[in-house]
Amino acid sequence: MIIVMKPGAPMQECEKIKNGLINNGFQINEIVGVNMTILGVIGDTSTLDINLLRVNDWVEKVMRVQEPFKRANRMFHPEDSVVDVNGIKIGGKKIVVMAGPCSVETEEQIISVAKSVKLGGAAMLRGGAFKPRTSPYSFQGLKEKGLELLKIAKQETGLPIVTEIMSADKIERFVEDVDVIQVGARNMQNFELLKELGKTNKPILLKRGLSATIEEWIMSAEYIMAGGNDNVILCERGIRTFETYTRNTLDLSAIPAVKKLSHLPIVIDPSHASGMWWMVEPMAKAAIAAGADGLIIEVHNDPEHALCDGAQSLKPERFAHLMGELKGIAQIIGREM
Amino acid sequence: MIIVMKPGAPMQECEKIKNGLINNGFQINEIVGVNMTILGVIGDTSTLDINLLRVNDWVEKVMRVQEPFKRANRMFHPEDSVVDVNGIKIGGKKIVVMAGPCSVETEEQIISVAKSVKLGGAAMLRGGAFKPRTSPYSFQGLKEKGLELLKIAKQETGLPIVTEIMSADKIERFVEDVDVIQVGARNMQNFELLKELGKTNKPILLKRGLSATIEEWIMSAEYIMAGGNDNVILCERGIRTFETYTRNTLDLSAIPAVKKLSHLPIVIDPSHASGMWWMVEPMAKAAIAAGADGLIIEVHNDPEHALCDGAQSLKPERFAHLMGELKGIAQIIGREM
Amino acid sequence: MIIVMKPGAPMQECEKIKNGLINNGFQINEIVGVNMTILGVIGDTSTLDINLLRVNDWVEKVMRVQEPFKRANRMFHPEDSVVDVNGIKIGGKKIVVMAGPCSVETEEQIISVAKSVKLGGAAMLRGGAFKPRTSPYSFQGLKEKGLELLKIAKQETGLPIVTEIMSADKIERFVEDVDVIQVGARNMQNFELLKELGKTNKPILLKRGLSATIEEWIMSAEYIMAGGNDNVILCERGIRTFETYTRNTLDLSAIPAVKKLSHLPIVIDPSHASGMWWMVEPMAKAAIAAGADGLIIEVHNDPEHALCDGAQSLKPERFAHLMGELKGIAQIIGREM
Amino acid sequence: MIIVMKPGAPMQECEKIKNGLINNGFQINEIVGVNMTILGVIGDTSTLDINLLRVNDWVEKVMRVQEPFKRANRMFHPEDSVVDVNGIKIGGKKIVVMAGPCSVETEEQIISVAKSVKLGGAAMLRGGAFKPRTSPYSFQGLKEKGLELLKIAKQETGLPIVTEIMSADKIERFVEDVDVIQVGARNMQNFELLKELGKTNKPILLKRGLSATIEEWIMSAEYIMAGGNDNVILCERGIRTFETYTRNTLDLSAIPAVKKLSHLPIVIDPSHASGMWWMVEPMAKAAIAAGADGLIIEVHNDPEHALCDGAQSLKPERFAHLMGELKGIAQIIGREM
Repeated sequence: MIIVMKPGAPMQECEKIKNGLINNGFQINEIVGVNMTILGVIGDTSTLDINLLRVNDWVEKVMRVQEPFKRANRMFHPEDSVVDVNGIKIGGKKIVVMAGPCSVETEEQIISVAKSVKLGGAAMLRGGAFKPRTSPYSFQGLKEKGLELLKIAKQETGLPIVTEIMSADKIERFVEDVDVIQVGARNMQNFELLKELGKTNKPILLKRGLSATIEEWIMSAEYIMAGGNDNVILCERGIRTFETYTRNTLDLSAIPAVKKLSHLPIVIDPSHASGMWWMVEPMAKAAIAAGADGLIIEVHNDPEHALCDGAQSLKPERFAHLMGELKGIAQIIGREM
Repeated sequence: MIIVMKPGAPMQECEKIKNGLINNGFQINEIVGVNMTILGVIGDTSTLDINLLRVNDWVEKVMRVQEPFKRANRMFHPEDSVVDVNGIKIGGKKIVVMAGPCSVETEEQIISVAKSVKLGGAAMLRGGAFKPRTSPYSFQGLKEKGLELLKIAKQETGLPIVTEIMSADKIERFVEDVDVIQVGARNMQNFELLKELGKTNKPILLKRGLSATIEEWIMSAEYIMAGGNDNVILCERGIRTFETYTRNTLDLSAIPAVKKLSHLPIVIDPSHASGMWWMVEPMAKAAIAAGADGLIIEVHNDPEHALCDGAQSLKPERFAHLMGELKGIAQIIGREM
Repeated sequence: MIIVMKPGAPMQECEKIKNGLINNGFQINEIVGVNMTILGVIGDTSTLDINLLRVNDWVEKVMRVQEPFKRANRMFHPEDSVVDVNGIKIGGKKIVVMAGPCSVETEEQIISVAKSVKLGGAAMLRGGAFKPRTSPYSFQGLKEKGLELLKIAKQETGLPIVTEIMSADKIERFVEDVDVIQVGARNMQNFELLKELGKTNKPILLKRGLSATIEEWIMSAEYIMAGGNDNVILCERGIRTFETYTRNTLDLSAIPAVKKLSHLPIVIDPSHASGMWWMVEPMAKAAIAAGADGLIIEVHNDPEHALCDGAQSLKPERFAHLMGELKGIAQIIGREM
Repeated sequence: MIIVMKPGAPMQECEKIKNGLINNGFQINEIVGVNMTILGVIGDTSTLDINLLRVNDWVEKVMRVQEPFKRANRMFHPEDSVVDVNGIKIGGKKIVVMAGPCSVETEEQIISVAKSVKLGGAAMLRGGAFKPRTSPYSFQGLKEKGLELLKIAKQETGLPIVTEIMSADKIERFVEDVDVIQVGARNMQNFELLKELGKTNKPILLKRGLSATIEEWIMSAEYIMAGGNDNVILCERGIRTFETYTRNTLDLSAIPAVKKLSHLPIVIDPSHASGMWWMVEPMAKAAIAAGADGLIIEVHNDPEHALCDGAQSLKPERFAHLMGELKGIAQIIGREM
């Protein structure tokens, strides 16, 4: 960590800061420049609060040299992490596709979609039981009943279940019923929820917040890992920008960035980012080409009558066709599907 | 609501959509343009899910004409709402200032700051007991112990307490101990928490999410109001933009915008937006000049030893001096302080 | 176009607006809703200035139903446009790769890189002679001398030249010496330059501005086309977002979006977006998978001694290897390279 | 400047970088940390290109400690700069208001508005002759004819003229006819134009680009100053964010930020940022309260028939009333008007 002192900072102020840090076990290396003095802080600075150092009025700025995350940091864990979901490995050579409807609606619907996506090549079933909606007047999901229907679909197809949790009081139920617990973009910094999930050993699919930096996103993974649960899968689903033609801007450069910074696997959700089914296909192909470890895609057998987000759902036939192309791209870049 | 059909949309597709809406009690008015047909939907469209209409492939786009919120909408409630906090009115002619430290640290600290800000003219005491932190390794607040200390400070000074809640399981305790329950920016779309707060009748200070549009923010207020609790105070605290010199960009145009769209009061947090104490003063003055109903300002008796965010805290003397200037500006624009 | 009147708008105000539009040759269709009246404007609204209609205080908002561009609009030109550069076709089945150094530095350098990229499979040579730099103290390019060196490299290799223009007074020279004239992101709305380029018939590579919406970008193409020059190639090179790990966020969803809205070809610049060479490869592959018509990639024979942006340049060997993978992906999605 | 080497960087790579910098006259101070080595570069790094250092693969990142601007930097010029426009001082104790229509339309219009704003207390007349428009089909301004009309209005009222230049070939004419030359947001990084303006000694009003960081904006001022023209006035006019209710987000925190970083004066344009006249008043008051050195406000005698941007123009009566309130606020914060 680098502490830049203001021009003319009195020696005793520098000393005060240095001594504070030395007393906390850090070493300090000083660089005296033309206009300003710089203090280089040596030690494990990941637990140092940058704001506590900025408080001294003689400090111009404080800059981190090293990322503030440890357990999620590739520097200390050079090989890729592989998360095991009932024997399916996420983060290895094989790319994993999770597919299914935005919302669980009826038993018939979820079983029908589950069978279709399995046939198409999906390895897991996604489907929302608890739905975060911008409007209190929109359909909020079937809730516990939705979890029941997902379990039936799993029995019928053998596909593990991925579904979103919205509050910590449901964790016990999710741990029992669900194979991958999804934390939605809006809850990426719901720290109380993250802490509780860190106490389980369930795989967690952690979506990136709408305006979360890659660092903040990995810090949210660190919250879960700090609690003892290393089974974190990162999921990029579009960030908020000034562009309004697409609902969000899918940030595919997050794939190589995450792979550089962290050892955790990363999957891409092309459905939520664009909000339009005809964009899902090119963006899914692009995600695989860019090195994603998996995809999470909305598929619905009857999008026109979907209770939510039908406009971004693929029909089963298109999904199956897309899977064929994805397989081809995976092969070109040395992966499997 | 306006539904724009694609050029060449077959008549039966238009009819299908029209009949669906008519069966749900809406009236439809059709405009046949040169290239495209437009369906105007008449009725209470606030409960209509825009995505359900976009799903038909012959629909080009769907545009809302009217805001999707009702209870928070000024159109149906033209006069300003005034929220009463133990007799202090927020949203009336008088501007209300809430001040105090980022975190409650010790009994001595919170009592000392509370006395200082009261002397300076603050009407309420703010102070964090539960702290949302980006890093799991940062100080997370004194939690329940912090609430106890806030209560002591309230007894000593008579100042009502504003403090942040981070999970629904603490609501009962907050309802008992706290005067205004703050929902932080990161929880603005923690819908489960909002729904539970809607069942209380406590004043809620709802911070705007880092990348929330004004409409989404008011929709989160609508969640609380839809549950029966109309005591919502909106709080702008900076949005996330590409600019990195300031921590966030304080969006003061949200003040006139919110006043146009909604009847709810709005207060400004200049401390979190900038992250630097020397910016707090000009931005606080600007907020009052732009018509804010109140301010929430960080004040600390010893910023250098604060356990969090000292760099953005004013010392009591500066706070008192600032209050003098604010009073002058309030008078110029026809408000009181 | 849709004009939404405020609740309670007096009849005569509606009439005033209606008559103004009718006198300009538009038809008006009125929808009287529960709370507000809507005027549907029928006719060619692309030349209507939305702000002139918003000026009436009884107008709540004005919404475009149809895009404001005509010549660039796929609605009126359903088949893909193909731009011909000395016989090389951009926008057809075959994907075109332009490669070369950020800046032209010496004769030896540009010839060496030109030969390498030709060998690697590039169809055109890129290289900056006039360089837009954030700092007046940075290297500003070899200017006219750079154009001379590019011409020599073209003679040696036969590769057509793509290079950036920075002011209208250089157009004559560029028309003579250059095969594709590049308009940089910072000049995307330099309307005087666009108008002058519209008077030539040279292919123009129009980069998207750092914070330009897709609509604004196509409107800048419209400026060139309105002048009579239809040879416009759009180029996405990263947009500015809150994310700081990458220099810019490459918006690959612009590919399907542009293809939907316009008939113009689109190429991707993965080098400038990321600013880091190791991100160029995955993003180039993703761009092809998403349907780009071409790529523009920085390649340098000696990045460590490049005079600008070496950090984002590929070495010739890596470029050649990348081209192999790109060819494979192109084939999978039914394109050629 | 700080160069962070990757963990395990070989000694000879560090040496290579160190020697390169030492040969260019810099001193190097090395900090050997637990995981990485840091090189502190001592000397005038404002002319060092950060990208040239990032190119070595063993470099993890390069961080500036000091701003890359010199002439505009307050560090080397602690007192405020005051720009003199025909005797009117911008940047001193007195706040300067420039007002007038978006576009010059007719002799009658511009004289009438000029007289009104003079009466209201404006010190300068603004008015567009050359208009940058997103659409080639929108009114592009009266051009040279507009300059003529502005000169007549100046003769009638004595008010100095502020108007926008769009291309370098018009500089001679502007230098003769105009008192302050405005560079629009879209041309903030039209470096050729900036260089040419640096050769004049005219006051330049430099608007901030839609997505320009404060540092980039000051770097554009540096371009003008590096050419020898120190008469630069910065103008904030709203930045582009995800928020769509306002046209742009007025960043008032740019006022204290610019005052901290630079000695140049800063004025605020509340009209373009919001795009709605009823927002201009609160934002103008906020700008003064935050410490702006001036305002540039759109005023039109007949907004409903304005040829551009009438919706954001104040009528003369409202302008005069606003000026009264602004005067009051100025006094409170120790300024004059």
